[in-house]
Amino acid sequence: MPSLNVEDRILRQFVALSLLLSFPIQGLAQQPAAKTLSGYTSADSAAELDWEQRFRAIPEASRAHENMRFLAAHPHNVGSEAQRKNAEWMVAKYKEWGWDAHIEQFDVLYPTPKTQMVEMISPTRFKLKLEETPLAEDPYTHEIKTQLPGYNIYSADGDVTGPLIYANYGMLDDYAELERNGISVKGAIVITRYGGGWRGLKPKLAYEHGAIGCIIYSDPADDGYGQNDVLPKGPMRPAAGVQRGSVSDTPLYAGDPLTPGIGSVPGAKRLAIKDAQAIMKIPVLPIGYGDAQPLLAALDGATVPASWRGGLPFTYHFGSGSTKVHMNLQFNWDTKPVLDVIATMKGSTEPDTWIVRGNHYDGWVNGADDPISGQSGLLEEARALGALARQGWRPKRTLIYTAWDGEEPGLLGSTEWAETHAAELNEHAALYVNSDESNRGFFNASGSYQVERVINDVAHDVTDPETHGTIWARQEAGRAVRENGRAGGGRAGAAAGEKDIIPIGALGSGSDFAAFIDHLGITSVNLGFGGEDRGGTYHSAYDTPWYIEHFGDKESLYGKALADTAGTLVMRFADADILPYDFRNLAKTLNGYSGELKALVKQMQHDASVRQHNIDSGFYRLAADPQKKASLPGPLPNPPDLDFSALDDAITSLGASAVEFKSAQDGSGSVSAAKAGKVNGELARAERKFLSPAGLPRRPWVQHILYAPGWYTGYGVKTMPGIREAIEDGRFDEAREQMAIVTAAVLSEASYLASISHELSTN
Amino acid sequence: MPSLNVEDRILRQFVALSLLLSFPIQGLAQQPAAKTLSGYTSADSAAELDWEQRFRAIPEASRAHENMRFLAAHPHNVGSEAQRKNAEWMVAKYKEWGWDAHIEQFDVLYPTPKTQMVEMISPTRFKLKLEETPLAEDPYTHEIKTQLPGYNIYSADGDVTGPLIYANYGMLDDYAELERNGISVKGAIVITRYGGGWRGLKPKLAYEHGAIGCIIYSDPADDGYGQNDVLPKGPMRPAAGVQRGSVSDTPLYAGDPLTPGIGSVPGAKRLAIKDAQAIMKIPVLPIGYGDAQPLLAALDGATVPASWRGGLPFTYHFGSGSTKVHMNLQFNWDTKPVLDVIATMKGSTEPDTWIVRGNHYDGWVNGADDPISGQSGLLEEARALGALARQGWRPKRTLIYTAWDGEEPGLLGSTEWAETHAAELNEHAALYVNSDESNRGFFNASGSYQVERVINDVAHDVTDPETHGTIWARQEAGRAVRENGRAGGGRAGAAAGEKDIIPIGALGSGSDFAAFIDHLGITSVNLGFGGEDRGGTYHSAYDTPWYIEHFGDKESLYGKALADTAGTLVMRFADADILPYDFRNLAKTLNGYSGELKALVKQMQHDASVRQHNIDSGFYRLAADPQKKASLPGPLPNPPDLDFSALDDAITSLGASAVEFKSAQDGSGSVSAAKAGKVNGELARAERKFLSPAGLPRRPWVQHILYAPGWYTGYGVKTMPGIREAIEDGRFDEAREQMAIVTAAVLSEASYLASISHELSTN
Repeated sequence: MPSLNVEDRILRQFVALSLLLSFPIQGLAQQPAAKTLSGYTSADSAAELDWEQRFRAIPEASRAHENMRFLAAHPHNVGSEAQRKNAEWMVAKYKEWGWDAHIEQFDVLYPTPKTQMVEMISPTRFKLKLEETPLAEDPYTHEIKTQLPGYNIYSADGDVTGPLIYANYGMLDDYAELERNGISVKGAIVITRYGGGWRGLKPKLAYEHGAIGCIIYSDPADDGYGQNDVLPKGPMRPAAGVQRGSVSDTPLYAGDPLTPGIGSVPGAKRLAIKDAQAIMKIPVLPIGYGDAQPLLAALDGATVPASWRGGLPFTYHFGSGSTKVHMNLQFNWDTKPVLDVIATMKGSTEPDTWIVRGNHYDGWVNGADDPISGQSGLLEEARALGALARQGWRPKRTLIYTAWDGEEPGLLGSTEWAETHAAELNEHAALYVNSDESNRGFFNASGSYQVERVINDVAHDVTDPETHGTIWARQEAGRAVRENGRAGGGRAGAAAGEKDIIPIGALGSGSDFAAFIDHLGITSVNLGFGGEDRGGTYHSAYDTPWYIEHFGDKESLYGKALADTAGTLVMRFADADILPYDFRNLAKTLNGYSGELKALVKQMQHDASVRQHNIDSGFYRLAADPQKKASLPGPLPNPPDLDFSALDDAITSLGASAVEFKSAQDGSGSVSAAKAGKVNGELARAERKFLSPAGLPRRPWVQHILYAPGWYTGYGVKTMPGIREAIEDGRFDEAREQMAIVTAAVLSEASYLASISHELSTN
Repeated sequence: MPSLNVEDRILRQFVALSLLLSFPIQGLAQQPAAKTLSGYTSADSAAELDWEQRFRAIPEASRAHENMRFLAAHPHNVGSEAQRKNAEWMVAKYKEWGWDAHIEQFDVLYPTPKTQMVEMISPTRFKLKLEETPLAEDPYTHEIKTQLPGYNIYSADGDVTGPLIYANYGMLDDYAELERNGISVKGAIVITRYGGGWRGLKPKLAYEHGAIGCIIYSDPADDGYGQNDVLPKGPMRPAAGVQRGSVSDTPLYAGDPLTPGIGSVPGAKRLAIKDAQAIMKIPVLPIGYGDAQPLLAALDGATVPASWRGGLPFTYHFGSGSTKVHMNLQFNWDTKPVLDVIATMKGSTEPDTWIVRGNHYDGWVNGADDPISGQSGLLEEARALGALARQGWRPKRTLIYTAWDGEEPGLLGSTEWAETHAAELNEHAALYVNSDESNRGFFNASGSYQVERVINDVAHDVTDPETHGTIWARQEAGRAVRENGRAGGGRAGAAAGEKDIIPIGALGSGSDFAAFIDHLGITSVNLGFGGEDRGGTYHSAYDTPWYIEHFGDKESLYGKALADTAGTLVMRFADADILPYDFRNLAKTLNGYSGELKALVKQMQHDASVRQHNIDSGFYRLAADPQKKASLPGPLPNPPDLDFSALDDAITSLGASAVEFKSAQDGSGSVSAAKAGKVNGELARAERKFLSPAGLPRRPWVQHILYAPGWYTGYGVKTMPGIREAIEDGRFDEAREQMAIVTAAVLSEASYLASISHELSTN
């Protein structure tokens, strides 16, 4: 809308935002005692609330716990015997509960270790053990024969020897620090600790800086004795504990590295392994701190800065080059089946609008917590919906409940399924509800912002199993106590009309929602509970039912809480007269992103100018210790003033459309079922407007222009990623191009909504 | 000035502060190329600058280094043979350099260990070693027979057995955390780590909470391998290293615990040991982490919070009571001599106005860094002034150069001397210039704020030995780089006229200025250099010349820098026509304190109200983990609105007087020597107006109402301590009483200055 003059623009923006932030939202917040659900007529609302209550009476923690004990009884990674048994068991269960269910198989590249050897060859010689010692107390840990050893899947094969250099968390800032200290990793083997950013970035950045190999270890400061007692006395990672995990470059694309963008079905065109961009170019291996300790202790050279220190009992050094390591990793580059369990319950009146629900069920080893704590709750949710259907309830829309296989290696099961069914999903999917492991504590949710309000509405209706208040009240209490330190806070200070809304987060990656949101633009949410039991078994052989029963959610109380929450959300979408999206929250959030981006530009300009001032003033030279040889800081990227006005105009338009839609939705009581069905189909596709067919720069698979896994954060989200990452990385022309793409998408969403509102308001 | 109406008051304050903050200070900042020193006529200024330059040509780093090697050659604690030899050597040197010099002796209570035993008796039995192992590389560490063992002087005798409880740093907040976890130290032996606050608070707070004994250890995270390599490979504290140190309750009073307020001269009335409030009531012993490790590893019970974790390779626990320790400490409660070296150079025209300069010379063992790195520079300064006098320079005012004995046990030498000469000092002392250890790096200064400008002026004239810029420029660069993280800053953003002023700090305690400023109200400053060599030898047997030559200021470059800086400052005061105080900086600083106190009240009110809101909302109850038994937070103290208007009025008056005085000082070129002498005598006594004869509440010895060691911080300063500590601790009536006292003192200073200005301006 570039032809408006500035005053007009500001005025329009002010009026629209005022509307957005006060009147209509406030109306909703002051719900009467007999509340009417958003998207429901008052009669339908009462019936829905009754069914939801009857639903939540069904899931049982003890049954979720039994599911966990069954599914996590044995190592059940992709391709294992136990995994097939689990899949078949779930299909049988679903059928028993009244669902249609089957296994959908994809054949994917799934390398497993053939040779794994690491040895120090200088200054002394020893081999690493590379074993996760079983615990006498935990019978599950003794099933060694069927365990996958500790490894990073999609590491390269490699037999390399080189000097060892410690690179802290192995993130970009860490390489800048190495450089300031005059240390190159060229030709070196880098040892980094877990944490600070997604694991796959560690070998990737090591490779990009010239390293020939990478070792990732779990430092005891991060999830070992520095946090709490280690197993078996406490819940933390013991010295032998290894964090397995994928190093497939998922910010680039998820799923089978050989089939980006298409399903790994028979006959699919597969890349050669050497051409698969997502596969690492150097060998990389995860180890425990028992194995890491002698390697790190042998490093010499300069002492690392404070933020690089871990919890081992010696001084950490960068390494001078005199410590030499030899590592040899060779893999079986096999194709293995991933077995997705797909169960459906057909919708009564709008069967072509789909609500998809998923949680993976593959574990790195036994995976009792990750992911079975979530999947065992999901199964209770499915059982309860089946039982509810026997009581007479029928969803208007079709439910698709899934158990994804192959999440751990790179979101394989969900991605291959989503890619295979892309056209149908594009046409039919209204919502994807994901969960993963779920633990004792506080509710948390991330997702598309047009679902923010309904998630909060649901959270106001679900009971927390520990406090017997609502999960919303507990979430609010937790935030109040945590965020404000000793004094506390809460939503009391929130803007009028938002006291009952706890902001959700945006979706990055790291679980099965990625293909749905990032690649297909399907409205998605991710739900979970946690925050009370901090453990150190993540992706190790110690994540077993014994661990859960001693240090986790011992009775799977939060398995039931997850079922209650996700099930209620699914029902609310499945049964609504008009799908309960609220785009006002989206517009408000986008307005926030625009503000953040402007602040980012200002901050970078400020930092660059102060940096330049300090350089010009000789401050770095004067302040430097002449006995140390660290190099002096250079200039910082200095962004030009970027023009956000068109973007802001577009967001303002979206805000106005959102207000309009809300009003049409609220007044839609008399629309025919046929029109409602048509409108709901259109609404289901509303998020698709945020897809850019070209994808983000340098990663065409990632097409959502509002949310993406960060190029340099991995799982961590970047919002308005095209613009934000271009600014952060100093590509200012690209930032302008991306801003135009986002602006066009937001405008397109605004007019799409406007036409839906029009359709809904006119008989 | 309570009768003024509000508008008048605000208007006056505004006008005076505007004057203070802009016009006159700005005038000064724009000094012409040929600068005129503050307090000097332009002719005298040129001569002075010339003499100062000639002075700074004399001190030599290599001579400071030789001084260090002599004075730190052997253990030389109070009462040792080496200490008497050092004293006599310095007297001889001073005489050789042309000074009058003598030893002034005080006989003080100086307990030394007779029996020291600590053993664990449950769950297993072992004795601690309590030995500081000599280093093969460092010959000095082998002189064990003359070393004092590791101990905390003024510990009580005691033979106690009890459960061991870990209390982190042993500060007030730590006891609150213990209480929240349901843990009492009643009847227990508390083990705390060094750091977080002054060591003497650790046994004091342990005792006040019911403990029967206290162990203080050096955690490797704080000054051991967690920071850098330990000795002999690096500079940090090895496992056997013990931090000795006084636990005399110096925030209460400094000096000989048996003679508070009076000199320990023959015939002085001494308290019985049991009546000496400064002596600890329970036994307390410092140990190294080698000895602490098995004690801490044996603790069980709940895991400590994150901020309590140290660097030992296990999980830290509070202790459940099952770990039992027996400690037996017995001391020889002897009287020992402290030998102050006192050297004087008589003033030519105003001999009755004194500039006192001091640095202690007693060490806990060899004390090469603490304090000899400072004392060895001071001696070069004295030699240079002697040589300058031979070139024809004579100070107008009398210089008193000192080497204090007995600083380590509790500022004994300086305090007993100050108390003995209290009446003369009250009459004559214009300035006390203190230093202590001095290391490589950045200049830092603390002191009375009327000296802030002249300290900055001097720092603009002294050359930094590493960068060859000025020490001011380097200090500015260091602050710019440190304070602003990666981006940096500097004084460029400072208010107009203050770009050449780096704020000094306020004086707390922990070195020999305490009696001068806190007890006698003598204008004081403390100068030093540091920040480049972080070591871990503090108060251990490893603080030797070998350590300095391997890990410290290897060539004593900063011994010379200290001599240059302090000597220039002394000369500038000794030679001035009118003493170069600038009270505008004081008024501005007091205005800042008043603002801080108002903000403190507001913050406490806010915290109390949010806390209450959270309690009322049930947030703590809802957020609590039901599987943990920590108690929920209770209400916080909620201060009433305190009326700062009278205090602000008084500060405004002081600001106006300060401006007036500056103008009189600048225009004083034609006053007679007699009048100048009289005015300078009066000016020297100006700081005495800030003494309250009754002292601070519960500590009559501490009489300065602007600066004091904090009751709960020890060395750390509290400014406007009577008001601030009363507010912090919830004694709001006392805060009002103390505000009246401060207000009266500030008003009294304002009129005192006004009358001096009047005297100076009228012929």
